[in-house]
Formats: sequence, structure tokens, C-alpha cells
Amino acid sequence: MAKETQFVKELADMQTDFATWYTDVCLKTELVDYGPVKGTMAIRPYGYAIWEVIQAELDRRIKETGHQNACFPTLIPFSFLQKEASHIEGFAPEVATVTHFGDEELSEKLILRPTSETIICHMYSKWVQSYRDLPVMLNQWANVFRCEKTTRPFLRTSEFLWQEGHTAHATHEEAEIETIKMLNVYQEFMKNVLAIPVLTGRKSEKEKFAGGHATYAMEAMMLDGKSLQAGTSHDLGQNFAKVFDIEFLDKDGVLKHVWQTSWGVTTRLIGAMIMSHGDQRGLVLPPVVAPYQVVIVPIAYGKNPHVLDKAREVAEELKNYGLRVVLDERDQSPGWKFNEWEMKGVPVRIEIGPKDMEKNIVMAMRRDTLEKQELGFADLAKNIAELLEDVHENMYNKAEKFLHEHIVQANDMSELKTSVDNGNFARVMWCGCPECEENIKAETGAKSLVMPLAQPRIMGKCFACGKDTGITAYFGKSY
Amino acid sequence: MAKETQFVKELADMQTDFATWYTDVCLKTELVDYGPVKGTMAIRPYGYAIWEVIQAELDRRIKETGHQNACFPTLIPFSFLQKEASHIEGFAPEVATVTHFGDEELSEKLILRPTSETIICHMYSKWVQSYRDLPVMLNQWANVFRCEKTTRPFLRTSEFLWQEGHTAHATHEEAEIETIKMLNVYQEFMKNVLAIPVLTGRKSEKEKFAGGHATYAMEAMMLDGKSLQAGTSHDLGQNFAKVFDIEFLDKDGVLKHVWQTSWGVTTRLIGAMIMSHGDQRGLVLPPVVAPYQVVIVPIAYGKNPHVLDKAREVAEELKNYGLRVVLDERDQSPGWKFNEWEMKGVPVRIEIGPKDMEKNIVMAMRRDTLEKQELGFADLAKNIAELLEDVHENMYNKAEKFLHEHIVQANDMSELKTSVDNGNFARVMWCGCPECEENIKAETGAKSLVMPLAQPRIMGKCFACGKDTGITAYFGKSY
Repeated sequence: MAKETQFVKELADMQTDFATWYTDVCLKTELVDYGPVKGTMAIRPYGYAIWEVIQAELDRRIKETGHQNACFPTLIPFSFLQKEASHIEGFAPEVATVTHFGDEELSEKLILRPTSETIICHMYSKWVQSYRDLPVMLNQWANVFRCEKTTRPFLRTSEFLWQEGHTAHATHEEAEIETIKMLNVYQEFMKNVLAIPVLTGRKSEKEKFAGGHATYAMEAMMLDGKSLQAGTSHDLGQNFAKVFDIEFLDKDGVLKHVWQTSWGVTTRLIGAMIMSHGDQRGLVLPPVVAPYQVVIVPIAYGKNPHVLDKAREVAEELKNYGLRVVLDERDQSPGWKFNEWEMKGVPVRIEIGPKDMEKNIVMAMRRDTLEKQELGFADLAKNIAELLEDVHENMYNKAEKFLHEHIVQANDMSELKTSVDNGNFARVMWCGCPECEENIKAETGAKSLVMPLAQPRIMGKCFACGKDTGITAYFGKSY
Repeated sequence: MAKETQFVKELADMQTDFATWYTDVCLKTELVDYGPVKGTMAIRPYGYAIWEVIQAELDRRIKETGHQNACFPTLIPFSFLQKEASHIEGFAPEVATVTHFGDEELSEKLILRPTSETIICHMYSKWVQSYRDLPVMLNQWANVFRCEKTTRPFLRTSEFLWQEGHTAHATHEEAEIETIKMLNVYQEFMKNVLAIPVLTGRKSEKEKFAGGHATYAMEAMMLDGKSLQAGTSHDLGQNFAKVFDIEFLDKDGVLKHVWQTSWGVTTRLIGAMIMSHGDQRGLVLPPVVAPYQVVIVPIAYGKNPHVLDKAREVAEELKNYGLRVVLDERDQSPGWKFNEWEMKGVPVRIEIGPKDMEKNIVMAMRRDTLEKQELGFADLAKNIAELLEDVHENMYNKAEKFLHEHIVQANDMSELKTSVDNGNFARVMWCGCPECEENIKAETGAKSLVMPLAQPRIMGKCFACGKDTGITAYFGKSY
């Protein structure tokens, strides 16, 4: 027991130092390590296995909604970035520049993609000629590069992994439908895969994508009350189509520019998952993405070899049922193993010992509540699978309750500041102007999160500047 | 028919201009397109779908042999490359260098990974302390950058996709076993997934990996008689472990350096597949990797709507059986569709027309032999699945026959030159020296391919320099 306490103490206190708790969890559970270049990360097998499930779950949804995968070059001519004025303004400060191939200096400098709108639009201008070529519905899984001053594993890194969907349509209406459709796909994915509730809606002018027409996003509340933007879906309008000449001959014989969208989520989702569900013992992994859904810890099997036989038999049974299982046969004490796997967030732990064998049961502990229960050997796999579903549901409900308990109505700047300083999101009536948002940021440290798509039909005054407005928005401190 | 002939003629003649035939096939079947930066490529959905199957098939094999995936940074400090003397000599001429983040010039220049030994060794030196941490068995799927003077889609590009396995072991013996195991995994994969026979063996000193102890490779014969190196597996010895200080405390209490391996295959495999199986009509895709295994072309369905109903029913049936199917309902003539899908290499085409409906059959054409056969509706999916297996087997056997018919014994330099000039591989007794290999290259244009692991126990003279040797090797012109 002494050892257990000691082990748990290795994580910083999440109540008083959430930031250090977060990096402790990231590093000590071996999800990730720092790379040698500032702001880069090496995603270790335990972290990458989570990303693989995220990829598989999302890839299926992306394909089911009619998209195909492709792969575009990482190296982009710098001149491409310059074509769209807002786009370069937004991205120039953070692009990495390649100047040499071998000893040879390049005549035109190249950038590493910070996002791929420009190079994809260049290719689309070659591929799209006629209305028959539309819609183009592509996605790519890729690494992107954005050099940041302040970096944290998963949340903000100089290189990260993501998927970026890029579509081109004949009409703005089609593009708008696509934008919202993918926002909804993301929201459903967050709920059913990561067990994270999100607020969705439109971003303010100040916070929208550099070069886009409108940005929609999902924002998740972390356990410290701050918001993490977990994914975005952009209605690009015709801004890129015009500068990259993506034109098609429409049915009516008229040459038109396409309407485009782009949408993406990143390895940041792993950070969202850690900060939505973790506790003082470490990770609490949603069962759908957990690399191991069940850990089996055999007890005192040195004295009783049948215990290990039974543990192996149970492991096989659960694997055959389709569960991801690890049987921990390492030469360590049960207490050490309990700590290790609790820290690593495995959703269900099964203990099998000599006394359990006599009673024909196993002891199952669920990580989310730490509750233990006895389970018989009959239908064990089915019962564990149901337990995992219950864990998922409980994790989502708990996070949703937390979110709703931390949304506070604010009617003026001072109420907003108090709300967000106390770890809440503030719901406000707001005008939406960039100038007003600058003021709010300066006075309170809060940023606008989203303006929900379903707006109450009421008019009021902007809480900050007093202008008439019908817009309800959420504000919060954010990552 | 006129249209059909015209369409087929769009490909250069493969007998007289194999190189242009190859790029024609790549571009016109929409596998790939050129990126804006010299030597880069955009892999289009049809090409990327093939890569996705290659990934899935290989990833399963890599995991089944005990490896886990991870992800390491793309950006590597230039100083890392300098640590291993042969490694920098091999890679320095082709690395891309990043000098700026935003406006800021970097104090140390960074390179884009041309391969990841250096950065992975840096991380392993942090992660490996004890024999308990070994073996480390990791793989990553990644993009790598090698700036090349002469580039061709899939075969040689400035950026390409690959998997790179990197393992660390306590003994050299373990590392050697791993190296050969992965070579065998690759060979089995080539046979059962891409239907390509390969010669495997050890590379010469001249051709081995820069910084490695020994390189093993598989070489495939393309239809022009040239060899394509399709994958490599390196025994790295302790070269990298020593310069990156990857040390572990062994069971005997002694601090030792680990023994390492690395192994990889790339998007080049798509090129290998095109040049192993293609014909004058275009691609011939191995059924396992074909994005569509079956195309259904309904005939004259304007006059008979039941045809389209039946075609849809058949499509559903085949999909439910687990086959990848496309039903071509586009407003084009059957002849146009036949040409299009033949060029795209779909392994089996099914035609359903009014006359077939009356006879209760469909007409099935296999792409490899262009043979047609009537199939009844009973057990259609099962029969098509068997036909696909037969297509695979026939493609492999045909390629294997081609390979063996084009291996010629050569006893002197002149025989070797004649052999390789006529599109053969030459089997020779060879000393293996780098100097001798330089001479052979200069006189004949041929490179050593591999020295098979199973060597006949005979002694002889080197065909080139006359030295005594017991080594049999293959030489050929190569990509």
C-alpha cells in the first residue's frame, strides 16, 4: 500500500497544478515524449495505438459520407501561400521554410504545409473542368507543421498529425451543407468514440480560418474549465477557387468558380481526451479507444499454477469476443500492477486469485468509478463488454454534467470575467464584432468559443458594447 | 470499336517505349499526378486506395510479428546526421534543409527525415536502460524526403510514403534473426498481395545501406527486364547504437550497446505492381489490392429497366460477400466503359444485358487473360471470388515464369553485358568487392542485385576479376 501511494504521488496535483498534471500524465504513461527539436513530439506506442483507433473510427465515418482518401505533397512553393491575402497573413509567422536540397540552394523557397488548401487547390485546378467532375470529395491523413512559441504535447506542437478534408462543389448551398454535415460527423464521433460532449457553432470573424468564408467548430470543456477547440469545419466560399482558378463549365454552359470546404481534427484530440476524463491516478481511457480495454492481473499464482492457466483462458475468451486484452504476467507485485494500469487508464481490470477460483468468480474493477464487482465465469466476455459500454456511457454523462454545471449566463464584462476566472464558460448576448472581441480579450482574457447554430429568437444588447444583437455566444478561456 | 481503339492508343507502345508507357499508365488511369515542386507527386484516390490496402495488409503482418506502431518527428537536427560517418556520406547530397521558422532564422539547421535511424536512435537512448526494455520493436508509417535529380512517379520521388521498422536487441544473433524474418515477411507479402515474385538475398558492400552492417533486399523483375529494388531489411550492427549511446544494463551486470535493425518498403511498390503486370491496355491489378475487384457494366438498360435492377442486385450480393464492387451507371457507351475499366485494371468485369437476363447468366471477363465466360446467378458471388483467386494465381505464375525465363548464366563480362542488354538478369560467380563492382558498372551498366542466402556449395572464379570465390550473385540493369 505504501508503494501504491508513492506511485500515485508521482503525478502533480491536478487541483493546484493542472498544467503539470497534464504533462506528467502524457510522459509518465508513455503516451508521448519530447523530440529533440523544440515543440516536436515522438508519439510512443501507447499513444499511437489510441491515434490508430481514432483514425480507424473517423476514417470509416469520412468514407461513409462519400469521401475518398488521397495524398498531396508536403512541400509547397512559398508563392502559393501568398496568393490568398488573409491566408498568408494568418500562416506566414508560423511556417517552416526549406531553402536547400543537398548543397543546392533552391531558386524558390518552399514551405512545409501548415495546412493544404493552397496545394490542393492547385491540383484541383488541373482536375476540375466540368460539372461532371464535381463534387470533389477528398480527405488526407497527414503531418503538418506550424512553428509555435509555446508548445505542449498533443495540444500545440510544431508538427502534428491530422486529417484534412477538402471538397469542391458546384454551388454554395452544397458547400454549406457539406460544412455542417462534417461538423455533425465530428460531434457524433466525439460523443461515441471519445465520450466527450462538445459545444458546436460558428466561429467569430476574429477566430475564423485565415482565408475562409465562415468557420464552424466544436469546443470541449477541459477539467480545468478551459476550452479546447477540438475540430473545425470551414466554408471556404470561392476565395481559394478564385485565386487558384478552379473553374468548371456548368450545365448551363457558363464557366464558374467552385465552392469549397475544408475540415479537420488533429492529434490534439488525445489531449482533449486526457483533460476531459483524467483523474489524480492518471488516465481514464474511453473504452472505444483504449489500446487495452481489459487488463487481467493474476494474483498469487506462484503458489497456485491453476490461477495462471485460468487467467490465460479468460484472456483468450475475451480476445475471441473481440476485446483488446492484456494479461500482465510480469514479475511484479499485484499492487504495482494495479497502479501501473490505473495510471495508464485501462477501463476494466480483472483480478483472478486462488480465492476467486474457489468461488468461481473474478473481481472486476472499472477505472471510471473505481468500483469493484464480482463476476461469474458464465457469459464473462459478454458481461465485460456490457460493463465497457456502461463505462463509456458513464464517462460521457459525467463529462456532460460537468460541462452544463459550468456554463453561466453573463450580462456584463464583470460577470463574464468572474465566470471564466472561476473555470466556467459564459453564455452571453454578443454583437460579434472583431473590435468588441479584442476589448473583451484584453479586459477578461476570454475568447469567443462558438455561436450555436440553433439560436433563441430573442433580441438583446451586446454584453460588452451595448449594441443591439440577436446572437447568443459562448466565451471562455481557451487552450 | 473505333472509339475503343483510339482510347487504347493513348498509351505509348510498351515494347518500344516502356518508360513513356509507364508514365502514361500512371497519369491516365489517375493513380497519381505531378506536384508543383519538382519530383513531388499527388497520389490520387485510385492510387491511394491501392496504398491503403498495401498498408492494411502489411500492417497486419508487422503487428503479427510482434511490432507496434509509433510516430517520430520529421524534423531532425543536422548534427544527428553527422554522427555516423557513412550515414551522412550517403544521405547528405539529398537532404532537404529547413533554415527558418516564420521570420526567425534557426540557430541549428534542421533536415527533413530521409530515413529515421538518427532520430529514433536518439529516442531509444532515452527509453532503453535495462535488458528488461529489450527488444524494442517499433514501426512507423511516414513520409520521407530525398531530393533526387531524376524523378518518376512512385519509383523515385522527392517525397514518398513508406513504413520503416526499427528494432533494438540485446544480441547480434537476435538482430540477425529479425532482419531475415522481416525480409521473409516482405517476400510472402509480395507473393500473396501483389502477385510479384522476388529474388532475395544480401546486398553487396557497395549497395548496402549507408551506416549499416549488412543489407538484405528483394529485387523484382519488371517487364522491360530491369530490376526494381522492392524492399530492404538492414542489420545495423552496433554502428548507430555506439554513436547515439543506446546502452543497456544486461543480466550479467555489464553495460552493453544494443544491436539494431531497420527495414522498409515504400510507395515504389505501386510502381513495381504496374511494371510487373501491366499490358498495352493499361493496368492489370492484383485482386487483393484492386480498389474495385469487380466492375459491373449493364448493357442496353435504357430499353429494359430490369437490367439495371438486376445489376444493382448483383452488386449488392457481391458487396455482401465482401468484394469491392463498382456498378458503372454513367451515361456512356458500354465500349467506352470497357476501355476505361480495362485501362484501370479492374480484375473482373461483369456484363449484364437483356440477352443475358433471358439466359439467366452474366458474362464475366477476367482482365489478366481477357477471357470471357458465362456464369449463372446461382452462387455468383462465390464463383466470382474463386475467379479472383484464380486471377491472382495466374498473375503470379505468369510473372514467375517471366522471371525464370529471363535469368541467364554469365561467365564473363561480355556474356553479362549481352544478357542484361537483352533484358535479362545474369547469374554469376562473383567476388563481391566494391572495386570489381565499379568496373562491372562502368563496362556493362549493370549493378549487383542480390547474393542469395542459400548459396550452392561450389567454388569458382569471379566472372569479372578472376579471383577465387564461392559466391553466386545476380546482376541486372536496375531502376
